Amino acid sequence: MSEIVTAAMVVIGDEILSGRTKDRNIGHLADMMSAAGIDLKEVRIVPDDQPAIVEAVNALRARVTYVFTTGGIGPTHDDITADAVAAAFGVPCEYDAAAYKLLEDHYAARGIAFNEARKRMARMPRGAAHIGNPISVAPGFSIGNVFVMAGVPSIFQAMLDNVVPTLKTGVKLLSVSIPSPLPEGTIGGPLGEIQEAHPDTVIGSYPKYMDGKFWTELVVRSRSEAALQAAKTAIEEMLDRLLQRS
Amino acid sequence: MSEIVTAAMVVIGDEILSGRTKDRNIGHLADMMSAAGIDLKEVRIVPDDQPAIVEAVNALRARVTYVFTTGGIGPTHDDITADAVAAAFGVPCEYDAAAYKLLEDHYAARGIAFNEARKRMARMPRGAAHIGNPISVAPGFSIGNVFVMAGVPSIFQAMLDNVVPTLKTGVKLLSVSIPSPLPEGTIGGPLGEIQEAHPDTVIGSYPKYMDGKFWTELVVRSRSEAALQAAKTAIEEMLDRLLQRS
Repeated sequence: MSEIVTAAMVVIGDEILSGRTKDRNIGHLADMMSAAGIDLKEVRIVPDDQPAIVEAVNALRARVTYVFTTGGIGPTHDDITADAVAAAFGVPCEYDAAAYKLLEDHYAARGIAFNEARKRMARMPRGAAHIGNPISVAPGFSIGNVFVMAGVPSIFQAMLDNVVPTLKTGVKLLSVSIPSPLPEGTIGGPLGEIQEAHPDTVIGSYPKYMDGKFWTELVVRSRSEAALQAAKTAIEEMLDRLLQRS
Repeated sequence: MSEIVTAAMVVIGDEILSGRTKDRNIGHLADMMSAAGIDLKEVRIVPDDQPAIVEAVNALRARVTYVFTTGGIGPTHDDITADAVAAAFGVPCEYDAAAYKLLEDHYAARGIAFNEARKRMARMPRGAAHIGNPISVAPGFSIGNVFVMAGVPSIFQAMLDNVVPTLKTGVKLLSVSIPSPLPEGTIGGPLGEIQEAHPDTVIGSYPKYMDGKFWTELVVRSRSEAALQAAKTAIEEMLDRLLQRS
């Protein structure tokens, strides 16, 4: 039997919690994990506060295969993710020689001062590995099972594209969507029975409300194609039966 | 001195973690809390899994003034939020007589069967108070400092509109945004000094990347108008100084 591979995410930033910036990275990571057969188990959004970041990273890295963080790795005083992740692992946060050289060369080639602020972006927990940044050079990093990436969506996505091919992937969770014209209240009873009779599937029911009318999206998920199809057939038969009656 | 009022959010649903549904409630709650002067301290997204919900609710309700949950209060087998919140508080989850009557009357007036699935929506932790639902009748509920609301955005928003006027509000956090044409790497050093010199403010720096060029949105937040203006002036003078030099 294949291993189940799991993930969690820590979104770091006061600007998300204040509503000023609307997160666009959670949905992208969720889609990428689903495509890779990795179960995203939890997401936490925490402020730019070292104890909050340390707590979230340490709680989650102990219980999932991979933790992904976004935000807080830039050059300004509120970018404290590298220090916080180093503290979470109990290692020093220090200039990484390779990252320092990369940034020094990058700015020298452009005649831009490699000042103290920009040097901050070369700081990483001791022992971290780089995550390549094809957009703005300053690398993300990984340490243990934690992958630390930028919060700017285009940079986050580019970094994640570099990370995903290096991950163990799981057996892809198959899913099928069955639209139900009947509302949840009508199908809830028989749907619960179908879930009980098909324990190798997870059946989700998502109420949709449009133009004053409810309908329901039913989603069957399973790692077994046969189990998926059996539950789908049972749901379709249930819907036919109820629709004839109504 | 006014009390600081804090909040946290628990988003409940496999469909968010799988990427199938993109959350639209976090940003709305964040905006509403900012407008009310309430500090949103943390958001967690957890699956439809009772131990995960109990853990998140109990961890967060102990440390903030208010906890808001979305999702999992419908009529189907995967709607387990009422049971999970009851378990978090160590009370039974049972039919609420007033909610039962409300739903019974609602469905009777429409000639719709009040079946077992629909009756599920009248279940609440013992001692819970209703949160009115002007859209689809079935109420949310509150118990202790936890407010349990629907996941469908239109219903969540309507429920939250009923909740917010009942909350203690804090001193509104004032904020001012200062666009910087200079990138974070250039301003990071002096900006850090300004933050140190203005301890009654929180200065955020948000890199923006557009059309191959970086610029920076600087945001000063404070509960004091005077402190806000002093930090804003210092930042503007810093930007003028650097722009003259470049």
